[in-house]
Amino acid sequence: MIDVTRLSLNQATVKHLDLPRAADLCADAGISAIGLWRDRVGEIGVGRAARVVQDAGLHVSSLCRGGFFTGVDGGRNANRSAVDDAAALGADVLVLVCGGLPSSGKDLAHARRQVADGIAELVPYAQAVGVRLGIEPLHPMFCADRCVVSTLAQAVELAAPFPSETVGVIVDTYHVWWDPALAASIQAAGDRIASFQVCDWVVPLPADMLLGRGHVGDGYVDFAPIAEQVEAAGYTGYIEVEIFNETVWNDPPDRTVATIRERFAQLSG
Amino acid sequence: MIDVTRLSLNQATVKHLDLPRAADLCADAGISAIGLWRDRVGEIGVGRAARVVQDAGLHVSSLCRGGFFTGVDGGRNANRSAVDDAAALGADVLVLVCGGLPSSGKDLAHARRQVADGIAELVPYAQAVGVRLGIEPLHPMFCADRCVVSTLAQAVELAAPFPSETVGVIVDTYHVWWDPALAASIQAAGDRIASFQVCDWVVPLPADMLLGRGHVGDGYVDFAPIAEQVEAAGYTGYIEVEIFNETVWNDPPDRTVATIRERFAQLSG
Repeated sequence: MIDVTRLSLNQATVKHLDLPRAADLCADAGISAIGLWRDRVGEIGVGRAARVVQDAGLHVSSLCRGGFFTGVDGGRNANRSAVDDAAALGADVLVLVCGGLPSSGKDLAHARRQVADGIAELVPYAQAVGVRLGIEPLHPMFCADRCVVSTLAQAVELAAPFPSETVGVIVDTYHVWWDPALAASIQAAGDRIASFQVCDWVVPLPADMLLGRGHVGDGYVDFAPIAEQVEAAGYTGYIEVEIFNETVWNDPPDRTVATIRERFAQLSG
Repeated sequence: MIDVTRLSLNQATVKHLDLPRAADLCADAGISAIGLWRDRVGEIGVGRAARVVQDAGLHVSSLCRGGFFTGVDGGRNANRSAVDDAAALGADVLVLVCGGLPSSGKDLAHARRQVADGIAELVPYAQAVGVRLGIEPLHPMFCADRCVVSTLAQAVELAAPFPSETVGVIVDTYHVWWDPALAASIQAAGDRIASFQVCDWVVPLPADMLLGRGHVGDGYVDFAPIAEQVEAAGYTGYIEVEIFNETVWNDPPDRTVATIRERFAQLSG
């Protein structure tokens, strides 16, 4: 059963707050977990960030992000540093956004092999440090410029060679809701589901597609069946609300959090 | 082998020309086929449209479009009329854009069943009139508002209950290039491939996602392997260039056609 204690706020949803203020907001609203971003962690340093979330009594449900295996040097240095941050923060998972087509080429199969190779190379380091990696499929509209992993099935296949406690997958409704194979892929993912993120698909999408996300209930995603499938697959972790949307960002953060709690209650009801 | 005689111009690529002028443009440029749209056909009436393309010596490689099975009355009346037009024009295929989520609901599985039911209902009429239907998967970013058929695999599955000469599928690079299952789905489609449409995926997409298409070679699609797979599946029909793009539309049509021929030659070379 989805209980409100499982609600996590991804800090990107309250973009105009720095990490200490986002942590305070969660604590004040009775939200027990937060999803963090490395750029906001970096503003105050990972050591202080770890203390801030600990002092606020928060669990770190995810850290965004590593990945970009198709870029310069395959993202190697940045990824080890991201793993270190995830360990220092006690994050449940380091989210991997795997990278788009490199500017040098259009060979999608090659780019996808680069991703597989990059993950394989990162795994021993993550294992040594005790951090779980989470491969996030991004909506196919981001395939060219951001992530060549476009379906949950593909993420599960990329994770398959590794133990599930080391390499999981991320289910984000915004990216996967359309997929005719979604139910089967969630079932196949099973205990690899490392994070369940929710936000809605609103129409029309704004000019910047990255910002086309809405509050749960404001768009076209039918959350209940997806949540049930994720539950049935055995996922018992946090459910993170991550909304990139200019209007939401410009709302007072306490109102945003109130809306999130209200919609979450409907989702769980 | 892809020969330039297989090039077809979809009239949407030269949006500012009416059908008679688009037909003249093709004839002058030595392009032997044209893809038509019902709204432009309707401007002059289907009888005259049929004569115009015949007088210009053009084959009609496709007619856009029927479908919208999730809308009011399941698109029933419009679809029979579209089938009639396709027959009158001698079109190789009537392209079906199957419809998005109805305003009344978010039940994607239900909407997809509506599409299957709508096709089943239309098939006997299409058979009686001798028109081939082509199910077009649209990019998943159109799933909410335009088409709940999001992958080629899904289109092939929808077509499967019917003879391939009655229900085929459309392969449009813009909609399917990202799909990790594309090669397998093209192979599975086999003789159901009723049209092969090409245009490129450019980044960033403009505010109106419908207009984000580029000339072959201007974006991220790797055409050669897709064209080879379509060939290997046995498709020997026309290859239609269909570009929705404000800049292309504002170019002089003869320049647009020159670019299309040049890029097509590279594709076939």
